[in-house]
Amino acid sequence: MQISPSEVKIPVVGPTPSPQSIGEGLCFSDGRRKVDYVLVFQRRRHSSIRSHASTSVSHDRLSIVSNGNFPPSVGSDAAAGRGGAILGGEASVGEVFMELGGAGGNEPTDPADNEMRLIRQEFEANLLEAGLEIERDRELKTHGPSFTRLHAPWPVLCREAEFLKIKVPTKTVRSQKMNQPFQPKVPHQDHERTKFLSHYTHLYTHTHTHTHTHTHTLLCLPWLYSAFYKYQPIDLVRKYFGEKIGLYFAWLGVYTQLLIPASIVGIIVFFFGVATVETDIPSQEMCNESLNFTMCPLCDGVCDFWHLSTACGTARASHLFDNPATVFFAIFMSLWAVLFLEHWKRRQISLSFSWDLTGIEEDEEHPRPKYENILLQKRQRKQKNKKKKKKNEVGKKRNLLMTNLSCFLFLFCSQFGLTFSAVFGVIIYRITVSALMAMSPDPETKSNVRVTVTATAVIINLVVILILDEIYGAVALWLTELEIPKTETDFEERLILKAFLLKFMNAYAPIFYVAFFKGRFAGRPGNYVYVFNDYRMEECAPGGCLIELCIQLSIIMLGKQLIQNNIFEIGIPKLKKLVRAIKDKGSAEKKSEQERPPQQWNLDYALAPFEGLTPEYMEMIIQFGFVSLFVASFPLAPLFALLNNVIEIRLDAKKFVTELRRPVAVRAKDIGIWYNILSGMGKFSVIINAFVISFTSDFIPRLVYQYMFSQTGTMHGFIDHTLSYFNVSNFKPGTAPQNSEHGDIIVCRYKDYREPPWSPDAYMFSKQYWCVLAARLAFVIVFQNLVMFLSLVVAWVIPDTPKTIMEQLKREKKLLVDVFLREEKEKFHVECPHWLNGCLCVVPPCTDCSPDKVI
Amino acid sequence: MQISPSEVKIPVVGPTPSPQSIGEGLCFSDGRRKVDYVLVFQRRRHSSIRSHASTSVSHDRLSIVSNGNFPPSVGSDAAAGRGGAILGGEASVGEVFMELGGAGGNEPTDPADNEMRLIRQEFEANLLEAGLEIERDRELKTHGPSFTRLHAPWPVLCREAEFLKIKVPTKTVRSQKMNQPFQPKVPHQDHERTKFLSHYTHLYTHTHTHTHTHTHTLLCLPWLYSAFYKYQPIDLVRKYFGEKIGLYFAWLGVYTQLLIPASIVGIIVFFFGVATVETDIPSQEMCNESLNFTMCPLCDGVCDFWHLSTACGTARASHLFDNPATVFFAIFMSLWAVLFLEHWKRRQISLSFSWDLTGIEEDEEHPRPKYENILLQKRQRKQKNKKKKKKNEVGKKRNLLMTNLSCFLFLFCSQFGLTFSAVFGVIIYRITVSALMAMSPDPETKSNVRVTVTATAVIINLVVILILDEIYGAVALWLTELEIPKTETDFEERLILKAFLLKFMNAYAPIFYVAFFKGRFAGRPGNYVYVFNDYRMEECAPGGCLIELCIQLSIIMLGKQLIQNNIFEIGIPKLKKLVRAIKDKGSAEKKSEQERPPQQWNLDYALAPFEGLTPEYMEMIIQFGFVSLFVASFPLAPLFALLNNVIEIRLDAKKFVTELRRPVAVRAKDIGIWYNILSGMGKFSVIINAFVISFTSDFIPRLVYQYMFSQTGTMHGFIDHTLSYFNVSNFKPGTAPQNSEHGDIIVCRYKDYREPPWSPDAYMFSKQYWCVLAARLAFVIVFQNLVMFLSLVVAWVIPDTPKTIMEQLKREKKLLVDVFLREEKEKFHVECPHWLNGCLCVVPPCTDCSPDKVI
Repeated sequence: MQISPSEVKIPVVGPTPSPQSIGEGLCFSDGRRKVDYVLVFQRRRHSSIRSHASTSVSHDRLSIVSNGNFPPSVGSDAAAGRGGAILGGEASVGEVFMELGGAGGNEPTDPADNEMRLIRQEFEANLLEAGLEIERDRELKTHGPSFTRLHAPWPVLCREAEFLKIKVPTKTVRSQKMNQPFQPKVPHQDHERTKFLSHYTHLYTHTHTHTHTHTHTLLCLPWLYSAFYKYQPIDLVRKYFGEKIGLYFAWLGVYTQLLIPASIVGIIVFFFGVATVETDIPSQEMCNESLNFTMCPLCDGVCDFWHLSTACGTARASHLFDNPATVFFAIFMSLWAVLFLEHWKRRQISLSFSWDLTGIEEDEEHPRPKYENILLQKRQRKQKNKKKKKKNEVGKKRNLLMTNLSCFLFLFCSQFGLTFSAVFGVIIYRITVSALMAMSPDPETKSNVRVTVTATAVIINLVVILILDEIYGAVALWLTELEIPKTETDFEERLILKAFLLKFMNAYAPIFYVAFFKGRFAGRPGNYVYVFNDYRMEECAPGGCLIELCIQLSIIMLGKQLIQNNIFEIGIPKLKKLVRAIKDKGSAEKKSEQERPPQQWNLDYALAPFEGLTPEYMEMIIQFGFVSLFVASFPLAPLFALLNNVIEIRLDAKKFVTELRRPVAVRAKDIGIWYNILSGMGKFSVIINAFVISFTSDFIPRLVYQYMFSQTGTMHGFIDHTLSYFNVSNFKPGTAPQNSEHGDIIVCRYKDYREPPWSPDAYMFSKQYWCVLAARLAFVIVFQNLVMFLSLVVAWVIPDTPKTIMEQLKREKKLLVDVFLREEKEKFHVECPHWLNGCLCVVPPCTDCSPDKVI
Repeated sequence: MQISPSEVKIPVVGPTPSPQSIGEGLCFSDGRRKVDYVLVFQRRRHSSIRSHASTSVSHDRLSIVSNGNFPPSVGSDAAAGRGGAILGGEASVGEVFMELGGAGGNEPTDPADNEMRLIRQEFEANLLEAGLEIERDRELKTHGPSFTRLHAPWPVLCREAEFLKIKVPTKTVRSQKMNQPFQPKVPHQDHERTKFLSHYTHLYTHTHTHTHTHTHTLLCLPWLYSAFYKYQPIDLVRKYFGEKIGLYFAWLGVYTQLLIPASIVGIIVFFFGVATVETDIPSQEMCNESLNFTMCPLCDGVCDFWHLSTACGTARASHLFDNPATVFFAIFMSLWAVLFLEHWKRRQISLSFSWDLTGIEEDEEHPRPKYENILLQKRQRKQKNKKKKKKNEVGKKRNLLMTNLSCFLFLFCSQFGLTFSAVFGVIIYRITVSALMAMSPDPETKSNVRVTVTATAVIINLVVILILDEIYGAVALWLTELEIPKTETDFEERLILKAFLLKFMNAYAPIFYVAFFKGRFAGRPGNYVYVFNDYRMEECAPGGCLIELCIQLSIIMLGKQLIQNNIFEIGIPKLKKLVRAIKDKGSAEKKSEQERPPQQWNLDYALAPFEGLTPEYMEMIIQFGFVSLFVASFPLAPLFALLNNVIEIRLDAKKFVTELRRPVAVRAKDIGIWYNILSGMGKFSVIINAFVISFTSDFIPRLVYQYMFSQTGTMHGFIDHTLSYFNVSNFKPGTAPQNSEHGDIIVCRYKDYREPPWSPDAYMFSKQYWCVLAARLAFVIVFQNLVMFLSLVVAWVIPDTPKTIMEQLKREKKLLVDVFLREEKEKFHVECPHWLNGCLCVVPPCTDCSPDKVI
């Protein structure tokens, strides 16, 4: 189909910016041509053999759009700009320089400074060929950063816009502002919600000046300094940072927004627990001193028998989180996760429509420079080795592959091992310290055993997690480099998957331990399980493991967020900046020739480079895990997450706008592999929550007691029912309490479903045990399948494409058909329905133009 | 982006067919213009008030492509052809006539013959306006069918091809024929695997002559009469019948092909059972007469105690299907279902690429004529009622809606009720007949009780299923009509969903009963459950319910397929044809004026109309259910399905080619809602198979016995362990055997895990019961989650788009870029990389044309 450009009226935005609006620092010396991109290379003062060249942006992608295949020869490798234009949106010159300067350094013969200069010259020649215009610094410095400014003229922008199929707005449709009070104050909102007809005409809107001056006029006000309850100005974020970063903030916004209902329901569930704690019969029974359950000692020898009523506090605390409302909340949160994903899908489709991303095709990506480099090195080595025997070479190749694979497996296993040994180490710490403290003669120490041990252990856990988190990040990167992925996207996906698996394991391993394993391998009185022959395996608190899980979860979640937000995200960059500033100052003192005021690019170069979105996403995904995976044990998790995110958005925004160099805008039509990870976690959370409710909480044993064993049909007698009997004469020698204050005790009680000492199968699991187990398992099956079914229904009921978008698409299509029909009529001159004075005439002769026929 | 048509070279296929190749009967009287479509209307001899007009095709869709909005006035309703062309591919004239003649008949004033003629004339005038050419019968008949032939000239075809964005082949890529022996012999294969560049140029390939002469030259040979192991000529099927039917046969082919490995594994599993039946300890123990288990009587009073060894046969038969290999097979089949769906996805993408369906957009569909009609009637009624009170009207409207909704709910519930009562009826039949036969004094009758009852009951079940199947089909249609869906697609989806739910319930309800409910509510000796106060609930055979499930499944599956294939699909159409032939003969005898030899359209009109693909899909989907849902109990199901399908494909092909009027080709890019149904069944099958293995088969009790209760760690003593004791003195009065041949019996045995009479909790569920139950439930959880995880992995590992397609898409894109670059160069005259003598020159001046730069 052909639409001539004249067919559609376009509001052409002139390519020449007015000098006064931009300021002198952002233009070429002629004061007219805008600086769109800045290249930097660093000359070392002491002429080291490894000349280090660096650029303003380090994580860009290589994208020469015009021709797909990369030249195989060495010479034209540097000529990456060959045959194509480098566009601000996906430019990649940075990495090429990096390769030639930095990573290429491990070649046998280091290129001399002269050689580097030649390569740079060739590179710049290619940029000129591609139609870009270049301006260099006037003075020739012998060291320090040198800046090369690029300007992309209008025809080049047009040509690239064609390649990227950027569409032209034809009609502005203002959306209904029902939620006006939540909208950020953005100066010009007319560019929002534009409609696009087709991409056969030219317009290029993105310009990439590597500067932050625009920011403080436009983006800071509505984004950074707006009230916390306002929406983010996502369209502006996208306009300034590109689609990829825009999508991140849009996603973060949707996630935070949806955390609000989850928090509210979580608070209600918590307060339901608070309100019913007084009427809860099991905790009443536990606190009832007259019932007088004498419990078996918690450690061998030194520990005495104890009364259950002393654990009254934890029992009451447990009830706050472990009450029937929790089951409802777990189902709610599983559906919430589905709802969140569906909602995000809709938002993404809305955004890709209004940001004109629908037509984006998966471009054939260029190989990463590093990949090319390694390939090149291999080829060179191969040529050298050609003189050697061929057989040897094949063997070597296979060897290399095997080494890589086995290396990878070995490392992965050892990482898992590391996590587990960290968890196990903390367990050992807990066991030994509590044993030692219990042996202490000081009664003060004794009474604080549990609190002290739990608190210190969780803090140790937290520190270990934070340290391992950093290590695992580095390990994932190293492992991915070993695999030598071909393209940047491939690299990113592999890295994310690895880092996610490692960090997920790291963050959740201790929580999984408390939820599903703690206290389950402790054995029973008279037959305890011992670690290192001396220390008994730890048991849960008498109130149940759920309260411990709750503490663990809240401390790790809060601690991780606070420490990572404050120290890692704010503190360390500030420190780095300080170090850089001191360094620069030192060099400036020694050479005072820099008299001119610093240009904008000098200032921008002093900022920290953009490190990619992976850490930001990762942090949020791990948080999503806290919110979804174990939400059954900690209904306040969504609230904590919400509070964190409201701050997080502002901190991230501030970082992006004021502390980082402006990232190169990258187009993306979705959040990529993160969606899959989120969806996978949502699915995983269903089964985890099912197990938490049925195995960690007391929900099922209570139900079973009430409907199967209770004589009265009430919960009275539940505590007695859950405690088994132990005949103290069955203690192994030396494990009975040495000095008991409780007088003559014949039987003590312990929490388990086992046969009493007077049964023929003494201390075997009782019928109740199997009965409760069957009920727990049945609950898991019912819960999992019910929630999965409901999730399917929710996902099926919510259409992926919002209705408004559907309607806009319809309208767009109608426009297209109209244009087409007009053209067709002219072409074939058949007596078909035709256009006359803006009317569609159906019956010839058409002279009347009734109003309902006007188009 | 603009590509002028001259840019791409197209092999233009001329629109004028050579007369001799097509034959006189298929052209207009000028012998040149091809007949593309035939309209029929039937004049009644006796001029009834309801003039019945019918057309050759009854299930066509209304599609006036050029202008989206339908005229709201009555007059132009008939002018459905207004402002657009009716294309063979989606033409719809049939229904419009139908509406005006048949369905419109319930209007208060029936249009007279004259009025009908006027409406037809207006309709035909609109066809002419749209550019179509019309030829009518020369003689004017007073009764019988009248034929109006249509011819679509080349410009009209081109215009519509533009609308449908039909692409032009630019390059032929022959696929590697690795599987040559399985390929059907198709005369011209060059049209396969063509590559398409863009749709901005004209070509229209589909022509719709309503005839079958082409068929016997082209389609019959490779499709109908090829050996069973050959692939179907899908491309030819699509060329002749359109994409929708082509996709059906492609899907059927993929399904049948994938049944082959499933059948093979099923046979291996079955033979594993055959091979191990002799070494299976539990069946040995059951057959061992020396063990001498005296079982409690199977009915009250008249039945005697019996020896377990008499059930030896069923125990051995059970082992054929219930052995450890079945567990593996169930996992295998769940993954197979995922694999099948993934494979189909790939095939669908391949097909939509080679059939040029990738660009199809969801067209805004026109409302169904029936919907329009109902709307029209309502509007008319409204205008009449305007004189009446407004309030009354609103109330009525709401009433109507409520009536519809409640009617729908009531009917759905009653359908479910009907199915359940049918199942229950058969149960009652079985219970009463076995009770009556057991009371019979004839020993011959007594010994055959079980066989007779089971066989007759299953056959009754089968008959009920077949009858209800037809009823439910009609009910689903009726319910959907009540909902008045707006578009044809909407109508079809609602109908399919309803019909599927009803037929699924119908086919599987008795199987579900046997698998999960039979024998579980029978009670225990001394406390049986009675139906109607007299009859004991039925129990499973002593060999377990699995063997009964197996019998039920095989008879229903085989019977349904044989009877539906032979009687419903072949017999009834034949009968209908016969009836039609006799009728026509009768009318021909009375009026012998028809002397001329019948035209091709006369012959074609005598064929049965095409009724849509829904019944064909439905049959296969129900079969898929047999193959996937209960495969754990019947490993031979895939084999039976395979055998059925090999025949089915040929029968369907024969039916479509020789017995039905040629359906109007409909474009479709996928199999629509059927995919969702298949995917849902695949998911459902995982949990069903988990339950069959853990609850219906003896797999879990055996494992539990071997690893928890067996003294020796072997299976010896398993049968004894599964039988509980009953003290005969505990029989309720009158239920003990009246005349026992077994002498003095104190305790008898029954299959259950209950406490023995001497236990304090006599006849309560024992610890073993809960233990086995917990193990069963644990197995369900493990199985379900394992299989779901594996399914995710399988779906993740298999890419949706085949590699070859990806490569072709890349090549296509490269072509596009080349064309674009050339054009750009001419447009902007910038010194960017340019084309010279077929070389891409990167450095000016470009005079050398090295070979590696040639494009």
